[in-house]
This record gives sequence, structure tokens and C-alpha cells, in this order.
Amino acid sequence: QGVLERLDAGEIVIGDGGFVFALEKRGYVKAGPWTPEATVEHPEAVRQLHREFLRAGANVLQTFTFYASEDKLENRGNYVAEKISCQKVNEAACDIAREVANEGDALVAGGVSQTPSYLSCKDKTEVKAAFQQQLDVFMKKNVDFLIAEYFEHVEEAVWAVEVLKESGKPVAATMCIGPEGDMHGVSPGQCAVQLVKAGASIVGVNCHFDPETSLETVRLMKEGLQAAKLKAHLMCQPLAFHTPDCGKQGFIDLPEFPFALEPRIVTRWDIQKYARKAYDLGIRFIGGCCGFEPYHIRAIAEELAPERGFLPEASEKHGSWGDNLSMHTKPWVRARARKEYWENLKPASGRPYCPSMSKPDGWGVTKGAKELMQQKEATTEQQLKELFQKKK
Amino acid sequence: QGVLERLDAGEIVIGDGGFVFALEKRGYVKAGPWTPEATVEHPEAVRQLHREFLRAGANVLQTFTFYASEDKLENRGNYVAEKISCQKVNEAACDIAREVANEGDALVAGGVSQTPSYLSCKDKTEVKAAFQQQLDVFMKKNVDFLIAEYFEHVEEAVWAVEVLKESGKPVAATMCIGPEGDMHGVSPGQCAVQLVKAGASIVGVNCHFDPETSLETVRLMKEGLQAAKLKAHLMCQPLAFHTPDCGKQGFIDLPEFPFALEPRIVTRWDIQKYARKAYDLGIRFIGGCCGFEPYHIRAIAEELAPERGFLPEASEKHGSWGDNLSMHTKPWVRARARKEYWENLKPASGRPYCPSMSKPDGWGVTKGAKELMQQKEATTEQQLKELFQKKK
Amino acid sequence: QGVLERLDAGEIVIGDGGFVFALEKRGYVKAGPWTPEATVEHPEAVRQLHREFLRAGANVLQTFTFYASEDKLENRGNYVAEKISCQKVNEAACDIAREVANEGDALVAGGVSQTPSYLSCKDKTEVKAAFQQQLDVFMKKNVDFLIAEYFEHVEEAVWAVEVLKESGKPVAATMCIGPEGDMHGVSPGQCAVQLVKAGASIVGVNCHFDPETSLETVRLMKEGLQAAKLKAHLMCQPLAFHTPDCGKQGFIDLPEFPFALEPRIVTRWDIQKYARKAYDLGIRFIGGCCGFEPYHIRAIAEELAPERGFLPEASEKHGSWGDNLSMHTKPWVRARARKEYWENLKPASGRPYCPSMSKPDGWGVTKGAKELMQQKEATTEQQLKELFQKKK
Amino acid sequence: QGVLERLDAGEIVIGDGGFVFALEKRGYVKAGPWTPEATVEHPEAVRQLHREFLRAGANVLQTFTFYASEDKLENRGNYVAEKISCQKVNEAACDIAREVANEGDALVAGGVSQTPSYLSCKDKTEVKAAFQQQLDVFMKKNVDFLIAEYFEHVEEAVWAVEVLKESGKPVAATMCIGPEGDMHGVSPGQCAVQLVKAGASIVGVNCHFDPETSLETVRLMKEGLQAAKLKAHLMCQPLAFHTPDCGKQGFIDLPEFPFALEPRIVTRWDIQKYARKAYDLGIRFIGGCCGFEPYHIRAIAEELAPERGFLPEASEKHGSWGDNLSMHTKPWVRARARKEYWENLKPASGRPYCPSMSKPDGWGVTKGAKELMQQKEATTEQQLKELFQKKK
Repeated sequence: QGVLERLDAGEIVIGDGGFVFALEKRGYVKAGPWTPEATVEHPEAVRQLHREFLRAGANVLQTFTFYASEDKLENRGNYVAEKISCQKVNEAACDIAREVANEGDALVAGGVSQTPSYLSCKDKTEVKAAFQQQLDVFMKKNVDFLIAEYFEHVEEAVWAVEVLKESGKPVAATMCIGPEGDMHGVSPGQCAVQLVKAGASIVGVNCHFDPETSLETVRLMKEGLQAAKLKAHLMCQPLAFHTPDCGKQGFIDLPEFPFALEPRIVTRWDIQKYARKAYDLGIRFIGGCCGFEPYHIRAIAEELAPERGFLPEASEKHGSWGDNLSMHTKPWVRARARKEYWENLKPASGRPYCPSMSKPDGWGVTKGAKELMQQKEATTEQQLKELFQKKK
Repeated sequence: QGVLERLDAGEIVIGDGGFVFALEKRGYVKAGPWTPEATVEHPEAVRQLHREFLRAGANVLQTFTFYASEDKLENRGNYVAEKISCQKVNEAACDIAREVANEGDALVAGGVSQTPSYLSCKDKTEVKAAFQQQLDVFMKKNVDFLIAEYFEHVEEAVWAVEVLKESGKPVAATMCIGPEGDMHGVSPGQCAVQLVKAGASIVGVNCHFDPETSLETVRLMKEGLQAAKLKAHLMCQPLAFHTPDCGKQGFIDLPEFPFALEPRIVTRWDIQKYARKAYDLGIRFIGGCCGFEPYHIRAIAEELAPERGFLPEASEKHGSWGDNLSMHTKPWVRARARKEYWENLKPASGRPYCPSMSKPDGWGVTKGAKELMQQKEATTEQQLKELFQKKK
Repeated sequence: QGVLERLDAGEIVIGDGGFVFALEKRGYVKAGPWTPEATVEHPEAVRQLHREFLRAGANVLQTFTFYASEDKLENRGNYVAEKISCQKVNEAACDIAREVANEGDALVAGGVSQTPSYLSCKDKTEVKAAFQQQLDVFMKKNVDFLIAEYFEHVEEAVWAVEVLKESGKPVAATMCIGPEGDMHGVSPGQCAVQLVKAGASIVGVNCHFDPETSLETVRLMKEGLQAAKLKAHLMCQPLAFHTPDCGKQGFIDLPEFPFALEPRIVTRWDIQKYARKAYDLGIRFIGGCCGFEPYHIRAIAEELAPERGFLPEASEKHGSWGDNLSMHTKPWVRARARKEYWENLKPASGRPYCPSMSKPDGWGVTKGAKELMQQKEATTEQQLKELFQKKK
Repeated sequence: QGVLERLDAGEIVIGDGGFVFALEKRGYVKAGPWTPEATVEHPEAVRQLHREFLRAGANVLQTFTFYASEDKLENRGNYVAEKISCQKVNEAACDIAREVANEGDALVAGGVSQTPSYLSCKDKTEVKAAFQQQLDVFMKKNVDFLIAEYFEHVEEAVWAVEVLKESGKPVAATMCIGPEGDMHGVSPGQCAVQLVKAGASIVGVNCHFDPETSLETVRLMKEGLQAAKLKAHLMCQPLAFHTPDCGKQGFIDLPEFPFALEPRIVTRWDIQKYARKAYDLGIRFIGGCCGFEPYHIRAIAEELAPERGFLPEASEKHGSWGDNLSMHTKPWVRARARKEYWENLKPASGRPYCPSMSKPDGWGVTKGAKELMQQKEATTEQQLKELFQKKK
């Protein structure tokens, strides 16, 4: 059954976790470019991660094609072994995802994300061509559905949906925005409306913000759709980092990004709360993005096991709410084998010399900075152009 | 070249990271029992983790035989698929480690650790028989050297060394103790002396405490050896969690153990400081234990690259001190592409409702509690016996 | 010169600090009722505190008549020595304030604040009568101007202003609200408009929120007045506690209120930043409320000394930005004798087992709770009535 | 009854709080020099603070003569109005303390503290002469007993005790040291022994460390006395700041000293715990030093009221363990009117951008730094000499 059949039937669809962060820690992805050449260079590592997410309960395996548009790979070309073409990376990604999906009952989703071309030229034709190029691979490899994800500007996301929609496959669209909306100031509600009107059947957010903030954004999207009397399924794939202190552009502006985010990593119990809250909000496509490891995905599946009627395979190695501690020889460790304990624990950081929050770098911190930001964004685009130029 | 040849020649030997915690997060090990049946059930997952540590720079691959003594597996039998024998687990562990070691230039180390038998009966013959049973497998599979690790009582560690020493292979011995010494009150210095006298060529600590505390313990061991005019190589394989607040029995007593340790996870930069400090202290076998992921091992290899003259394979996906950020379009992210930035950053937890330290549960918190603890330990042993009885 | 002459001439008027909290710590006011019978019981203590604020630079001494309306004192009668009448307390307060004001160049301001009558009956006549009774004393004692302060409902504040305005004295009005507005949901901007229309010449906020939040509220008031094309002087007298985590009803709902607020106390440097920001926002009546000690008021006077051209008397015992440390024998303490040091210091709490933020008790935490709150507020009022009944 | 009669009879003697910090905040003492010329300049402010401590339950009023030795005042001459002689300051201090003591049932204690002369010359005759000069005033004014306090070197403290002992008055002696001992490396136990042998009837610690650390130091003193079979009463007057992070020389080395210590201020409940623990340890002279405000002293008196059989006067304005909140209109504030609530509360700092601990500046951080420190101390003494020279 396809993703829409499942969602239409009221089923919960569990997404997978974050590839670039997980594979960076395993030694296969370079932070900075974050490109997915590992599909060609080290397919066994990509395959293993897919498998872990599948075991953890994921119903969807996303092809590892993040940032794999031609312009991006070219832009970051110095990081990638020269002979690996964009097409090869995308094809390998599809093959690996399909291979693992067939080991279980999962769908394969082909994904496209924002392009450097958009920021540097904004030429609709050129940007759409980049998406089309990736789509061609997805159609050749016959993925089950498509996700346009990680867009900061709804304008570009709409273009992506328009391209993907042509394929006839179901299209999901998620933006990496928070409650303040996209980088041009379009509110979450308005973003959702535009994406649905462009043809997305599933809308929501991914990346850039923590679970709590992301749920608030999806809530605003839901309100926007209701006000516009539009229907769509809701989707949420947040960070697995606590980021209550980040500004409009999310965790990239936090001083800890990307090499000191460890103290912000969420626990499995945080994820169970997230899954429950997402469910209560009416979201039925529930997954994760950067920071989500297999055990985080399993926590979604375990929290929603009562609704779904089954546990994921990886739960054979996990007790519900810590009950695997009930045989421990120390009585105080045995005392941790219960839900109330983990639900209420406020975990310490072990870092008495560190603060609990950071001031984000850059702009976008306060609402008052909006105008400045729009002005500055132009600068960013200008800088990007210059970086491109320099390379040529 | 063997481990002793390397160490005797002044080389740095880099250990690998923690299997039970990493594989728990990947869905293959159950917290609580922490047993390694995955070597039989999911060899590809174990193989992949070995491979990641190898790529990250590990010179030693430890067989995934933690807690794989007959008595332990039997004790935890309810968690393990019935038909997997202890011997099968250990043999598979050796085969996988060797297979991956052959992909590079690594040594295979067979490991034994403390046994339930010791605590519940303390019968020397019985405990030694458990070690001998594991050793038989290691000899059959011809591992390169042996590690007796994760011992809370030096008495049992000495027994293990005595058994392993019979094999003629080099023996390393590490205890999971802190500066206060073993559970019977033997100081780190005295522990080291006893272990060397029993035949260990390499001594140190592993697990239970954070890098800083562990280095302090090894320093005390070094002092003890110097005072006794004994020579041995030093080794350190600490947690990758910050635990300044833990008591004598280490991180197990922390309220966050084992399911909410995330905010304590150390960064790669913390590890670089650890590696440097370990080196300066004269430690030459430098690795990690629970919490150490491949990128933490890579951080050791990168910090000590000037001394060693080369970088590990996985560094092809990592810039030194964040220099892969130097092409970022945002100027404030580019500003993070330098050593001073990451060295001095005090990372925030994103958890304003959480404290920075916890009071450990149980006993062992203050020195004044020592007597109580010795009395209580008897109780623990009694409880263990009762749990055993109950099972039968 | 009167307060309006000073403000009209562009002068900065510095208010005094918080009496009930300061005198509670000195042993003369009871937390809970917070009533000012000390003016009769221990006039020397009240006089001394006035004197310290005067020395610190206050241009206004507020009569210590907080919560000294007949109904409040009766309500809390069990806490107050029986024979002290409300009138006696108010008269003594005026005498003491005037006596100290004459030692320098300060104005005396008579103050009224919200009444239990408003919440329990909302009868306009009765509530106004309570204000009139206090006003009679202020007129008899000929205070220089009047302040209606600490109102949670703009409706009651307007009634107070209407009463006070009849006297012909200048009237200032401050509400204890945050950016979300009053307890009936009236926005700060609207509150300011209503108060000015009722006759207040000076409007702003006092108490309940920290300096930063309070400045944001006054900013919104200023915007409201501008939009309505109304003119008034702006005033701010916030808490000297950091309360970024409090909900709509301010610090009373924080779990630490009122006996564990110590870790939230602001430093003199925090106050210098507050004074500068207040000034830049166009606020010219700058003082403090609960938690403000004399040295906090001095910090306002020192920060604005360049604009005012003089330092307060108490600065003879204070070096600017710590320069009194420049003679210290320890070089690292001498290194603290500079502005940059104190401006940038992030002071530690010395409390590693405590969090940095709390969840407020009660309602009013999130915007979504608004409806619930209005419903609950009715309950509160009901409870208040019952407490009254029980007493009779 | 004198102090020894009371202590010998098993009574608890409650000390007063810290003058220099309290009066600095009130505007009468300059941080840096910390000298007590306010006794002449603003006697009403000193009198009022004495009175507040008396009301709070203090049985001892210490003359405000801290750092009032001739050499210190001369050294800091630039801060003090020229015509105020050291003798005048000391005499006024005695008169004020006696006047207030007569309002209740308190004893007056004359105090001497460490001298610049000791550090800069160490000439026994000269240092003793400075103490004798102060003692002459205390004898003329007939104080009830004497306290030698705030000594970092036991050698100088012994000299002080020898001088004071000559008077025939009871002598108490407290050092500002922590568990690591005095600045020359003498352990707390040895310090206590030397002081008692020199003639002190009461020994203990004051200042520099928080209550918990100070109690540990007194415990070590008690052990030292027991081992030497000496008898003396024990005394403790710690900081009212949490300083778990400070090094051997105490809070002066913390980056927050002296102008950003606010987040470290202890609550009244912390003090109740301190008082109970001090009592359980056998300490019977229990007071406070820097940071102790009147309400902190009251907390000692309230905690020990069951043992003493009475409450202090200021408790008429305080409910035991918050019971004055039991009439609050908000149910969740009423819920705070109980001991368990305040005892277990972990108060938030409201400062999410600040850490919980600091690294002390300077030396003395780790035990390993001991040698360096002794070497550096010589430097400090040299610097002090040079500062003296420069002034002349």
C-alpha cells in the first residue's frame, strides 16, 4: 500500500532519521558540504543505517540524496571524489534504499531539497531543471513517492512540488522553518496553503528546530489549512536536538553548530513525548531529521505501539520505559525500571561550566530584526554569488 | 607487529570505542544485560561498527565478547535467544573482528571482564574456569593479545590476568575504578602494582568515569608503579560522558544511567583535549569505552597526528578543527572554522529546566560513606545470590 | 521643582527601590501580607531605608503605604498589631518620607495600589472610596505627587487615577503587567491609552517582571500612545530579579516566590544595562520595585551620570565599573577593575544541582491557556470571597 | 552571662552577619578597601544594621572594626576621609555595638583581623603592636570578649591570640581557610591545635567559603583537637554564598568576586540546613560572615528554636517554613506553605546564559599547584611591599 492509502486509512506512518549527521559521526559524510557521495563510496555504511531505521520501525526509507542536485555537488565539488557524477550518487541511493526496503515492509521516498541556484539566481527555469534532473532518476528507479524537503523559502518549495507533481507520484513537502515562517516572512499557515495548492498531499516541517518548536510550526500550518478550507496530511521530522534558544534560521546559527551539539541531543523519552504530542495534534507522518538515531525512531514506534498494535523489530532489544533494568543487582538501579522515573527525570549535563542556552550568532534573533534580516539576506545571496564566481 | 612491539618502540596505539552503547542505540544490544549475542544474530551490524572504528584510526579491534562468560549469559538467559551458546558468541566475535582487522592494519584483542560468579561466590577455581573457557576460544581463534577489562575488584582482575598470562600472549588489564580505588578499598596505585606483578604488561582503566577522572586514576597508577619500581605500559579507555558528579562506583549510580546520558556526551574537541593530556601523561594505549562513537576515536587520531605522522582514513571526511566550515555562505558560520573557536566554546545544553550536575543514587557518594558501603556491598552480593536462586 | 517640571525639562527622574522585600530581609515586613505597619512599629528602620535610597540617588521617595488600604489591612488584620489603624500607618509613612526627603533634594510621592475589594466585589464606589481614604491622608500631609501602582486590571487602575486626579496633584500610573497585557486581556498599549485618558501624566509598569521584560512592556505602551496620538511621560520600576521564565501573572507564579529568589537577583551591572536601555527607549522616570536595594538604585544614577552631570552621594563609596579593585594585591583581582570585565561576565550560580529556569505554577503560562485563565480567575475571586467570609 | 559561661552550659550562641558586604550594598562601605570608617561617618547606618541582627536573634554583636588596624587604614588612606583616625573608628564601633547590645541581651565582641604588616614584613613585634593598639581600645571600652578572625596564616593568628589573651578576656579565633588548610600548608586540625595552645577558648572558621565547605573545615579542626586531646568550643561563620567551585584561597579568586556574586546568595532554607548540620557537628557558636543579612541570622535562630525554646523578635514577621503563605488567594501559592516544599526546591537562577560554576582565577585551584602557590605567594608579598613603597 502506498503512503496515501495508509494515511487515508488513518494509519500512522513512521519516517526515518537523519542521515548526514549519523553518517558524519560514523565517518562517511563531511560536515559543511554534507553531500551524500557515500552511496557510491561506501554503500555498506548507507545500507546498514537504512537497515537500522527499518528495524527501528521506519515505514519510509528516504533515498540518501540530500543536497544531491547537480549545482550543489558541483559547488562542493572539491569535497567529492571527482569522478562521481550526481546521477550515479542518486541512482545508488535509490538502489540501496530499495534493497533494504524489500527486507521489510517499507516504502522508498525520493527526496529533493533546496538548491544553491535558487539563492544565487532565482531563475525559475534553472531551479526547476535541477529538480527535474533528480526526478528523472527517481522515476527510472521507480520510488514509491516523493518528498520535497528542507526549504527555507516557500517560493522554491512550490517550484519543487510543481516539478515533482508532474510525475503522478504522491508528493510530500516539508520546510525547515519555525513558527516565524519562511525567510521572506511568509507565515507557516500561508506556506502550507501554497504547498497544498501546488499539489502536495502531505505538508509539514523538517530539520532546523527541535521537536517542540516544530510541532508548534505544524500546528500553525494546520490552522492555516483549516482557515483556507484545504485538506492535507500533516508531517513532522524535527531535529533530535533541544534548541529553545535558536532564532528564525534555526540551529545553524547556534554557536554549537555543528560540532558541539552533543549536550542538546534528546533522549528516547523526549521522543516518546514528541510522538505522543504529534499524534494528539493530528500528525500521522512522524519521523526525524538531523540527530535522529535509530533508537529515536524506535521510541516513536514504541510510544505509538498501543495505537498501531505492534512493536518494531528492534524492540526485542529494548524494554518499555526501562523495564529491562528490573533485574539489576543494585536496588536503586532497579528503581529506574518504570515510566514515572524516566518521564520526570531532568537529566544533568555533567557540564557545570557551561550555560543552558546560547545566543544565536548572526541575525534573525528577535522579531525587531526582521527588516535588517531581509536586507542582510540579500547580502548572503550576494556572498554566495561571489563564492560561485571565485570558484570559476 | 604486536602490541608490545609497537608500545616498546614508543608508538601510540589507538583503541576502539564502546560496543554495547553504540549497538544499543543502533538496536542490537539490550541495555541491562548488555550481552553480545549480536555477533551471532546480526553479524553485519557488529562488522560495520568494527569497520567504522578501523576507519577512524583504531589500531586494536576488541572482540565483542563483553560479559560473554558462561555464567553471565546464563544469568541473563531470558534475554538471549535460547539456542545461542556462549562459545558460539565468542567464536563469532573473533571471526568478525579478524575479518575487519585484515581490511587494515589492526590487531585483534580478546577480552574478558568481571563475572557474576565472583560477586556471588568468590570461589577462585570457579571464576578462573569461566575465564579459561573464554580464553580457549581466543586461543583457538588466535587473537593477537588479551585484555582483562572492566573489573571493580583487583582480586578478580588478578585472577583473570593469571589465567590469561598462561596463554603466552601479551596481557593488558584495566579496571573500571576511579581515584578512590577498587570496591574493597585498594588504591589505584596498589591495583596497578598487583596487576603488573600478576603478569600484565599494560595497565590502566576503562569505563565508569569520564576522561578527566580516568586520567587522574591512571596518573595515580603510574605513581604507584614508580614507587614500586615496576615498569608497564599505561592504557586509558574512559567513558565518552562527562561525569564530574559521580561517586565511587561511577556512572551507573548517576540518575541518568543508562537512558538519559545524552546531555553528558563529550564532543570531539573534548576528546582531542583528552588525547593530548593522556599523551602528555605518558599513556600510549589510548582508546575509549561506553559512549565512544567512531568520530571520537577519530578525534584521538587527529589530535595525535603530528606525533604519528598520518591521519586516519575517516579524516577524508573531516576538516581539522572545523576548517570544513570555511566555505559556508554565512560569515558567522565561517568564523567557526578555527581551533580557538571550538577549543574555548562552552556548549549549551538547550535544557534550561535541567541542572548541570546530579547527586548519585546509592552509596559511595562521600568518603564518609565508605564503611557503610563495605557493609552494603555484602548486601549487594547477597541480593545477587538471591536473584540467582530465584531464577533456578 | 515638581516631577512634571523636571520631566518636561527633559531631566531624568530616578525612583527608589522596593520596600517590602528589603524590609522583609531586615526583619520588619511579613511576606504574604506584605503590609507596611513598620511605619508605626519601627519607624527608624523605614527611615534608614529611605535615607539609603536618597543617598543612592533617588529623586523620589515613595511613602511606604503599599497595600495600606483599609480593606487590605483589615483582611490581613491577624498579622498586624490590633491597635494600628490604617490611617496611622499612612500618616506615619508620609511623615517619615518627608523627613528624609528634606535631607536632600527629593520629592515625596503618595502611592495607592490594587485592593482586595476590586477582586471580591468590583463595586466601583466601594473601591474608589478605599482610594479616597488614602488620598485624604496624602493631601493632609501634602505629598508632592501621586502614584497609582501595582494594578493587574486596567479598569481598577483607571478608577484609581480618576480619584487621585481630583486632587490636582500630578498623577503617575504603573501596572504590574507584562507584554501580554492585563488580566482581562487588555494590551499594554491599550492600558496606557486608558490611563492617560483618565488623567495620568506619567505611565508605565512596576513589579512582577524583570527589567528586560518590563522595558518591552513599556515599549508596547509607548507604541500604543503614539498610535493614539497621546502624550505622556514613561516610567519603569521593574523587579531586581531575572524572570525570563515567568508567565502572564509574573514572578508570583514562579516556584521560587517569595523565599528562594536569591539566585535570580540582578547585579549592579545588569542594572546599568537596564538604565541605559530605558534611557534609550525614551523613559525618563527610572526606578525599581521588589528586589531593588540601594546599590541597584545607585547603579542607575551612575550609568546616567554622563547625562545628568553628577554622581549620587553614595558613589563616594563606589568606584565606577569596579575601579576600586585597581589597588588589590592579587594581579587577577586587579584585572577586574574595568568595564569590559563586568559587562561581559556571565556569573555562575554556584548551584550545579539547580536548573536555570523554572516552569511557573498555576495558569497563564501559555497563550493557549487564556480562556482557561479567565475562567479560573473567576474561581480565584470566588476563593477570595470565601476567605473573607471565613474570617468574619 | 559571658560567652564562655553560655557555651560551657551547653547553650547555643548565635553570631551576627556580615557588615562589609551588607553596608556596601547600603552605600556606606567601599568594596576593595572594605574599611569601617562608617562608624564615624554614618553611625546611624551601622547602628541600624546591628539592631537588625539583634532582632534576628544574634547573641553577639561584633564591633565593626574589620580591617581597622592602623597599617590597613593607612594603606587604604586614600579611600578614607583624612581626619578620621584609626582610634576614633574603633572607639565609635565599640560605642555603637554596646548601645544596641543594651537594647537586648547581647554580648559585644571586639575583633581583630589579619594585617598588611604580616604579609609585607612578618615582623612579629610590629604585627603584635598593631593588635595591641586595637586591643587598647577594646579594653578601654570594656567589650565582653575578643575575636581574632579572618586569618589566612595560622602563624599570624597565633600572634593575635597571644596579644588578646593578655587581656584576660575570653578569646575566640577563626581562620578564613578551607579543608586544604592555611596558606603555608598547615592543616585545619593543626591550625586548631596551635590556636588552642596559644590560648583560644573557641576556634573555628569564618568567611572565604560557603557553609558546607566551612562545616567540613570545622569538622577537620574538631578531629585535630580530639587527636591532640585538646578541648575548645567550636565556631562557624561562613559566607552566605554558594562556592563549591572555589580553590584554596576561597571566594576572592572566583571571577564573580565581589560585584557579581548575587546568583550565589544562599536562601534562608539553605541556612536552616547549615544551622542544623552545624549543631549536629557539635558547633555551638553559629553565625555568618560576608553575605549574611539579618534574615539569614533569623533562619539560624528559627532552625534551632526547638533546642533553645524561643524564637527571635524578628520572627514576629516570619512564618515558620513559609506558613505565612497559607492565606494566599492562589491555591498554588498556598501550596508553598510547608517545609517539604522549601526544603526540596532547587531554585532556578533565571540566567539561562550563565553557567553554574566558574573556574577560579589565579592559583590554588588544584592540589598539584601547591608548590607553585608557595612560590607565587612570595610574589604576592613582594607586590604588596611594592605597592606600599609606591604610596610613600
